[in-house]
Amino acid sequence: MTEKPQSPSKSVIQTSSPNSSENNEMVVTPWEVKGKVDYERLVREFGTQPLTEDLLKRVEKYTDKLHLQIERRIFFSHRGLDTVLDLYDEGIKFVLYTGRGPSGPVHIGHLVPWIFTLHLQQKFDTRLYFQMTDDEKFLVDDEATLNETRKYAYENALDLIALGFKPENTFIIYDVKDMDLLYDITLEVAKRITYSTARASFGFQDSTNIGWIYWPAIQAAPCFIHKKLTGENLPALIPAAIDQDPYWRVTRDIAEKLGYYKPAQIHCRFLPGLGAGGKMSASMPETSIFTMDQPDVVKKKIWNAFTGGKGTAAEQRKLGADPIVCSIFQYYFYLFEEDNTKLEERERRCRAGEMLCGECKNDIAAKLNKFLAEHQRKREKAKDVIDQYHIKR
Amino acid sequence: MTEKPQSPSKSVIQTSSPNSSENNEMVVTPWEVKGKVDYERLVREFGTQPLTEDLLKRVEKYTDKLHLQIERRIFFSHRGLDTVLDLYDEGIKFVLYTGRGPSGPVHIGHLVPWIFTLHLQQKFDTRLYFQMTDDEKFLVDDEATLNETRKYAYENALDLIALGFKPENTFIIYDVKDMDLLYDITLEVAKRITYSTARASFGFQDSTNIGWIYWPAIQAAPCFIHKKLTGENLPALIPAAIDQDPYWRVTRDIAEKLGYYKPAQIHCRFLPGLGAGGKMSASMPETSIFTMDQPDVVKKKIWNAFTGGKGTAAEQRKLGADPIVCSIFQYYFYLFEEDNTKLEERERRCRAGEMLCGECKNDIAAKLNKFLAEHQRKREKAKDVIDQYHIKR
Repeated sequence: MTEKPQSPSKSVIQTSSPNSSENNEMVVTPWEVKGKVDYERLVREFGTQPLTEDLLKRVEKYTDKLHLQIERRIFFSHRGLDTVLDLYDEGIKFVLYTGRGPSGPVHIGHLVPWIFTLHLQQKFDTRLYFQMTDDEKFLVDDEATLNETRKYAYENALDLIALGFKPENTFIIYDVKDMDLLYDITLEVAKRITYSTARASFGFQDSTNIGWIYWPAIQAAPCFIHKKLTGENLPALIPAAIDQDPYWRVTRDIAEKLGYYKPAQIHCRFLPGLGAGGKMSASMPETSIFTMDQPDVVKKKIWNAFTGGKGTAAEQRKLGADPIVCSIFQYYFYLFEEDNTKLEERERRCRAGEMLCGECKNDIAAKLNKFLAEHQRKREKAKDVIDQYHIKR
Repeated sequence: MTEKPQSPSKSVIQTSSPNSSENNEMVVTPWEVKGKVDYERLVREFGTQPLTEDLLKRVEKYTDKLHLQIERRIFFSHRGLDTVLDLYDEGIKFVLYTGRGPSGPVHIGHLVPWIFTLHLQQKFDTRLYFQMTDDEKFLVDDEATLNETRKYAYENALDLIALGFKPENTFIIYDVKDMDLLYDITLEVAKRITYSTARASFGFQDSTNIGWIYWPAIQAAPCFIHKKLTGENLPALIPAAIDQDPYWRVTRDIAEKLGYYKPAQIHCRFLPGLGAGGKMSASMPETSIFTMDQPDVVKKKIWNAFTGGKGTAAEQRKLGADPIVCSIFQYYFYLFEEDNTKLEERERRCRAGEMLCGECKNDIAAKLNKFLAEHQRKREKAKDVIDQYHIKR
């Protein structure tokens, strides 16, 4: 049994906060997120920058209106976004880069940064490189086979395409299949990362397999692939959940030595699961809504979800409920209520006891099922065009 | 500056023997060979098997006559050759696998195992996979660029083809260009090698780059590629210099877990350089005869070579010379005197003082230049057919 890399440094946070119970301990590594996530602490300990009002104004200049995910600080932190905007002001564009570890089916939480990425792509009219890390998921999970991770890479790509990305400027990189495009770049990167740097950044141990140790070079490569494919040297901007930050820190340290711009990141939070707290996890399927879930399954999961409600309807009408701890309210906040006024009204009615959890759950189940029916339809159509998103040789 | 991995274990031998002087210390790692090589000690400490009379008889059964390199114990040690012959007796063939680290031009010493490999291929009518490790040479040498190592991979392949290998059953793998064929196999291998195993086998240190750490998985992959390409599961037999042995030990440990036969090896000695002792080294060009050397350069190098001769002609006529320490005699022994009777007569005349070094040097220079003229001609022709040796997609 492979042990997960442990935390020897501040880059991989894995300690109890004083008041956390044993099983609510915060764990945030590129391979594992659990417990109650303290985002302010992540910004502090990872050493990233918060998204300031000033920076948001600069983004707004190019996007007309701030996307709700940035306005609501679902994207809340960055590295080097200011530099990318400086360059953009001077006429130097950027490419977008994000990805997915295809270890299972896609759930609603995975869609959050992809939706924001699509928004950036549309507003900045730029190219996206999307990495399917079928190799990584094979290396870090004892039980995974390459057949499985490659199958999920295909399945997950359908979900990406269903969101509306266009093949003219969206390039999906399947690591195993596309290593011919990445390999020389990974070598240039790997030569400049010593084992001690990798161990300090990712918590590798003696029992870590050598594939996992090499892998940071493979996650770095798409930052630099645009120049190889087009001859054009542009910085990459990476919208992704903050657990992936250690990769980019290492990559930023070597980018300029290789003649590239440092990749910039913009980091998002995790959509909480339907249980009490924590990231939505594919390993606890009852706490996540998967894109292929059928209406009755969605209703059942929503019905069983953790909320901020009281023990009885009478008590809740009298005392109101707490939307802050409610997993259902997060669904509105992250994705399903774009209108701030309506969101505030929902919050007010919840707190005042005017709306009980049943009504709120019925509303979100209907919204989810409407969204999923449309998504599933587009996802089916994606099967006909998926090859157009593959980089041509 | 990258430090070369040091020896933390018996698998990488790097210690002084009691009588060695500082600069004649034996160093044998996959990346560096220097000093006087004690082959009996390597067999003992690497834990390989000597080639026994019994085993040679079994080889002879299939090869009619033993090749001089095996008869003279230039190939002197093995791992699992007996098992490969057992399988062959039962009708299960094998594939050959060897390779080259393209860090510079090819010299005569590099040709020794290739000539023997060609002999095996012809006698056993089998396929050869030849790995050009342009990635490895880039990773282990601070100064190397990928352009250089890839250029030498091409140049070195011409030397291989010039020896007479046929494109129908000779497949040259250029790592960087052909990683698409190897990558899934390297992942299966890498997942089963922990960092502690790799460190113990290769002497990796904290300062070793992560590309170098992954690389053993890449050298393992061609052992298993035949099944992927043809569907046929056959063992690989690897003729190579003994410094590469640590790779195969690790590969043998995991082969069966992946559903393959353990690769077998047959290990050769290094053709000594023209200086006093040690391997012929590309980093000391005056001690090596390169395949592209011109006649006058060859004559000069041979003229300056270290021999077992005496200080004056008169002394040597009286006392004789010592062919055992003579670098020129090794050329006859390894490559240029196939007739044992003639070799013994040359040795006798040398010891008896009947033949002086000048005569012997003139003879070998003539033989070398005849061989090189022919080799260079064939090497030029190889440019027209080199693409036929590349694995088709």
